[in-house]
Order: sequence, then C-alpha cells, then structure tokens
Amino acid sequence: MARFRVTYRILAATPEEARERAEGIALEQTVEVPWDVVPEGPIRDRIVGQVESLEPAGGAFEAVISYDPDSAGHEILQLVNVIFGNSSMQAGIRVMGFAPGAEIARRFAGPRFGIAGLRALTGRATGGLIAPVIKPQGSSPAALARIAALCVEGGADIIKEDHGLADQPMAPFEARVRAVAEAVAEANARTGGRAVYIANVTGAGGDPVAQAHRAKELGATGVLLMPGLMGFGPVHALSRDEGFGLPIMTHPSFTGAFVLSPEFGIAHGVMYGVLQRLAGSDISVFPNVGGRFGFSAAECLEIAAACRGEGPGRPMLPSPGGGMSVERAADMATMYGQDVVYLLGGSLLRAGERIGEAVRAMRGSLEAAGG
Amino acid sequence: MARFRVTYRILAATPEEARERAEGIALEQTVEVPWDVVPEGPIRDRIVGQVESLEPAGGAFEAVISYDPDSAGHEILQLVNVIFGNSSMQAGIRVMGFAPGAEIARRFAGPRFGIAGLRALTGRATGGLIAPVIKPQGSSPAALARIAALCVEGGADIIKEDHGLADQPMAPFEARVRAVAEAVAEANARTGGRAVYIANVTGAGGDPVAQAHRAKELGATGVLLMPGLMGFGPVHALSRDEGFGLPIMTHPSFTGAFVLSPEFGIAHGVMYGVLQRLAGSDISVFPNVGGRFGFSAAECLEIAAACRGEGPGRPMLPSPGGGMSVERAADMATMYGQDVVYLLGGSLLRAGERIGEAVRAMRGSLEAAGG
Repeated sequence: MARFRVTYRILAATPEEARERAEGIALEQTVEVPWDVVPEGPIRDRIVGQVESLEPAGGAFEAVISYDPDSAGHEILQLVNVIFGNSSMQAGIRVMGFAPGAEIARRFAGPRFGIAGLRALTGRATGGLIAPVIKPQGSSPAALARIAALCVEGGADIIKEDHGLADQPMAPFEARVRAVAEAVAEANARTGGRAVYIANVTGAGGDPVAQAHRAKELGATGVLLMPGLMGFGPVHALSRDEGFGLPIMTHPSFTGAFVLSPEFGIAHGVMYGVLQRLAGSDISVFPNVGGRFGFSAAECLEIAAACRGEGPGRPMLPSPGGGMSVERAADMATMYGQDVVYLLGGSLLRAGERIGEAVRAMRGSLEAAGG
Repeated sequence: MARFRVTYRILAATPEEARERAEGIALEQTVEVPWDVVPEGPIRDRIVGQVESLEPAGGAFEAVISYDPDSAGHEILQLVNVIFGNSSMQAGIRVMGFAPGAEIARRFAGPRFGIAGLRALTGRATGGLIAPVIKPQGSSPAALARIAALCVEGGADIIKEDHGLADQPMAPFEARVRAVAEAVAEANARTGGRAVYIANVTGAGGDPVAQAHRAKELGATGVLLMPGLMGFGPVHALSRDEGFGLPIMTHPSFTGAFVLSPEFGIAHGVMYGVLQRLAGSDISVFPNVGGRFGFSAAECLEIAAACRGEGPGRPMLPSPGGGMSVERAADMATMYGQDVVYLLGGSLLRAGERIGEAVRAMRGSLEAAGG
C-alpha cells in the first residue's frame, strides 16, 4: 500500500545523532516502543515508520519518514497524530512537508468546493473575493445582521462572522445565526447578490458537527471552524457529509505556537495550507503580512502556494486576514493574484452606516489593480 | 459579574511598548477591533479585556488582563479562545497563569472524579497509581487483551491504551475495546482487582463524545482523550454528562509547540494542569523528566502542582509518562509524592509473558520508597 511521507527538520550535532533522532521519530509516531520490543512480522516491516532519506540542510538535517496508511486508518485526527503527535513535544523537530501518496489521497479527498466551487457559489468568476467580518463580540443579533446586510449591498462575496461570536448571552447562537442569515438572504434577493454567509461554529455540547448542521437549518450557507480549538475532525466529517454540503472556512485561532519558531512545530505552508486542505477546508484564514501579526511576506506566500498548488485534494482559497486597505489593494493583488479571499476586519467598521461603500471602494481599487 | 484573569508574559523593550501590547491583547481576545470603533456602553465597559496590572518581570513584562465571563459564555472552547486564540499568533506573548473567578468556577466545575474519585474507583487509598500502557499499534485485539489481563494480574490500577490505538484495520475500535474490556473485567473478577480500563477515543465521524459513549457500552470504564487533536470540548462535555459518568484521562499529543519556547505559547503548568482541570479531566498525562522528552524536573513539578493545587475544580492526578523504572522508583516517589499516576510504557513490554511480574516489581519498589 502506498505509504505517506512526512519531511521533518531535525536539529542535531552530527549525522549519527540526526539518524538516531530520525529513527526515534519513526518509532515514536507509530509503535511507541523501543526497537528491540517491536514484534517481528508486519508491525516491524510495515507499521513502524521508515526513514527514507536524511540529508544535511541549512545547519540542521532533513529527514523523510514514510508511514503505512493503516497506521492512520480513515480518521484525520489519527493521521495528524501519526504525522506529529508525540514528536511535537521533542525540541528541535519541525514538520516541513507532507506527501499523501495514493492511498491517503484516496481516503482524504480534501475540499468539497475549493476555488472553483466557491467561485461557482458566489458567481465571482475572476478576481479576489471580498469577505467583510461582522463583529464585534457583545453586539446584538440585530446589530450584526444590519452590518451583514450593508456589506452584501456593497458587493461582498462572503459574509464571515468573527471567530469570537460563539453562544454568548449578548447574541446567542440560534438568534444570531437566524437574524444574520435572514438579513443576508434578504439583501442578496434585493441586490441580485450571491453572498455566502459563513457562520462561526464553536461546539456547544462538545460537537461542532451537530452545531454546523444547526447553523445550516438556521440559514447559514457556510461555516467557520477552528481546528486549533476543535481539531481537524469536524472539518473532515463535514467536508465528507453529503447531507451538509456547505463550504468550510477554517480559522487559525490557538495555532500560533505551531509556527512561531523555525526550530520546532510545523512550517507555515503545512499548518495553514496542507493540513487544512487535507482535512477538507475550502478557505484557510491566516494573519496577513502588514497587519497586527508578525507573519512575513514569504511565510504568507508559502501558505498561499500550499493552498493552491498540487494536492492533497482540490486547490483551496488562501484567506489573508488584516493588513488590507484601499491603499494596499494593488500590492496585495500583485502578491496574491486572483484566487484569494480578502478578510476585511475591524477597520471597516469605522465606516459605520457607510460600510457598504467601503466594501465597494475596496472592490474598485482591487479591480483597478487587476486583482 | 466576577471577571476571570489571565496572566501573560509579554516581550517588550519599554514599559510603554508593554502597555501598548497588553492593551492590544485585551482588544484582540475580545472585540478584535481598534479601540476607536468599540461601541460605547457595555461592549466598551465590560466586554473588552481590562489590563489590571503590568509589571516588569525577568527581562520582560507580566500583565494581568481580566475578561467578562459572558465573553466566553458556557463553552470551554470559547473560553480557551478568549484566553489565547488570536494572541497565540503574536510573537513574545506567553500565558503564565489563569484565575477563574467565582463565575467561571461555577460554569466550569472541573473534574468529576479527581484524586479522591479515582482512589475510590480503584480502591488504591494511598500510594501512587500504576498504569501500564497496552500497545504497540499493529497488534491484534487478542494480543492487546492478553497484555491487559497480565497487567491486571500484576496489580495495575489502570490499564491505559496507547494513544496510537485508533480505529485501524489491525485492531478496529469496536473489536479492540470489546476484547480488552472483557479481559480486564475477567482478570479483575479472578484477582479481586478493581483496575480501571481507559480506552483511547479518537473521533470517528468527527465526534469523540459519541465514540466515548460507545466505548462505555463496549465495557470501557474510563476514556483517554487528546485535547491537542480534538480540543477541550469533548473533555468538558463528557465530564458534565451524567449519562456518561466515567473518569477521563487526557493525553498531550500534538501540544508540544505550546510549551517548548519560554517566549510564547503557554506555561507548562497552565497547559498540562490548569486547562486540563478546567475542562474536566481527572488525570493529565505529560512527558516525565528523564524519559525520551526534554521536560525538566522543574517543569514536571510545575505541572504536578497545577494539577493538585488550589482550583479550578477538584484536584486531579498528574501522570508522568516515561522515565519510570524499578531503579528510579524511589526518586520518583520523592519527587511526586503519592497522588500521581505512573505510566509504564514500552520498556515494560520487554518482560513479555512476565509483564505482570514487572508491574508487581514496580509496586514493590514504589511501596518500599514510600510512594
């Protein structure tokens, strides 16, 4: 059976130490016992990870380790567990790449919609998609619905809820999603728009999948999930769920520690591109260069490339959050090209009742820049 | 309403910069908009985080920021989102402490069993609890059941499944849990033992809560959950679920990046003590000093103190994994005292059919050391 491959960057003083560490990962991520007690036969021959290559790389070493798809079974959670469960706790190991191979690619089919699907849904055949974020936390359902309607009137492609809107007393989940869904549908009907309303789903009762279905019943036409807070399980389950069938946007909340050090954790492109896509997300949000977070342009481009390049699964939309303005539209269009969802955050609220005009201005400057 | 408090370590060159960063966190973690667009009234007065104090601390600054319980609502996932969602992505911010205050302590009651509950269930009134881990991945249900039975005969308090046992073809979830549960029950009956069988639950179909209930139906008397891979939602849901009512052990898979740098992420005691307990875990697994991971004795003791000290909720059991042997029993007993669960991992398998004797020898050396 075609094995899947993970590339790890390993800190080590010598090639021998690097080899020892790589072989340690191969055991740690599978059988989790010392080599001498690994049973003979298929466990030793197939289940234990295999070090396929080991090369010096920029002051460290890069090891490719392959694993049997049956080590993961059919669950994304267990697949992530094999890729980097226990080894995440060892210093000086960073996941740099992932190649699913034919069998994992078959078991984990990736985004249901992807770039082409989202363009079809929104009717935005070319150019960047614009996604204002409705907030702030503490607002009433009516206030949030009003902002959403104005943004649809301004030509937004996606109405995204702030990831801090959960099930709080100021705007309980049911009342909020119902009100915003109605406002978006009504504004779409009035303007001939096709804006998708992406409701934030947390996980009342521990089950985000059930809450996503409830959001759909209430009128949401997409959902926002947070793999850092709920794992990739709900993304995978919903992306494969024929009875659900809505696009999924993933938000990076609580994932920062994975990427901040070059010496451990997970490379930006793998974290916000490969893993999101493997799980079945259609749109991956990450902090844009030039906003309130410290991601570099190179890191953002690495993420965008991982979202849109060769597999796993259909290409998905990168969604840089923050750092976007009418003034920066040309730069952003040059940087990201057309297949991108721009989140427009808090500064948009400065426009107040004229927020729709602000969305329209953004579209204008983006189109003028060819993005 | 009593606010909850989070202590952050903030890297900054000057007190002014530290103040600016702290105020940035207070906005980022709640309304996520610039201060000038925060609506007047309750959102500005209550929902936005408040910087309660800011002091220089060891070359950086320590800020205490308070939040309104309604910012979290009643969901652990949203509570974690407020504590450190987006700020996790900013360099130089580390969560050092958490104080629930009266309201969050009421909403999140913590472990159902805790130390006293686990002692009552297992009948181990004093001394450390011994928990062999059954593995390796790739073994058949019968082989795993056989190891479990031998460990019960040797006097194990807890039979813990390896966190790499999911729903793989070599040992599908249903067949495995049924076989191990029967073996543990039978060995308990034969020896008069009261060993708890903690089945590993991942999340087929995206819902670990449903799978935990299924494990119970199949005979498991406790469950292992992995918050790094599935979030804290399932822990919280199951700890409050009267119809479930089994102890919960949490495993640190995929959480390493949070603790490895002193400059960002989450302090060891908060990650493996406070948050686990807040969510409702009864036993928190972490990598022991002297094993294959690099945690220091001080970090392990910080975790143990957070598990057993003053709230949130009942004291829970710290569970150091790895690094335990007959030779080290005295040192471990001195280090951890009595309220601790020792995981005995892969090296135990070297004993083969005499694994029960190895468990008994561990008990002997632990008791001799007063632990």
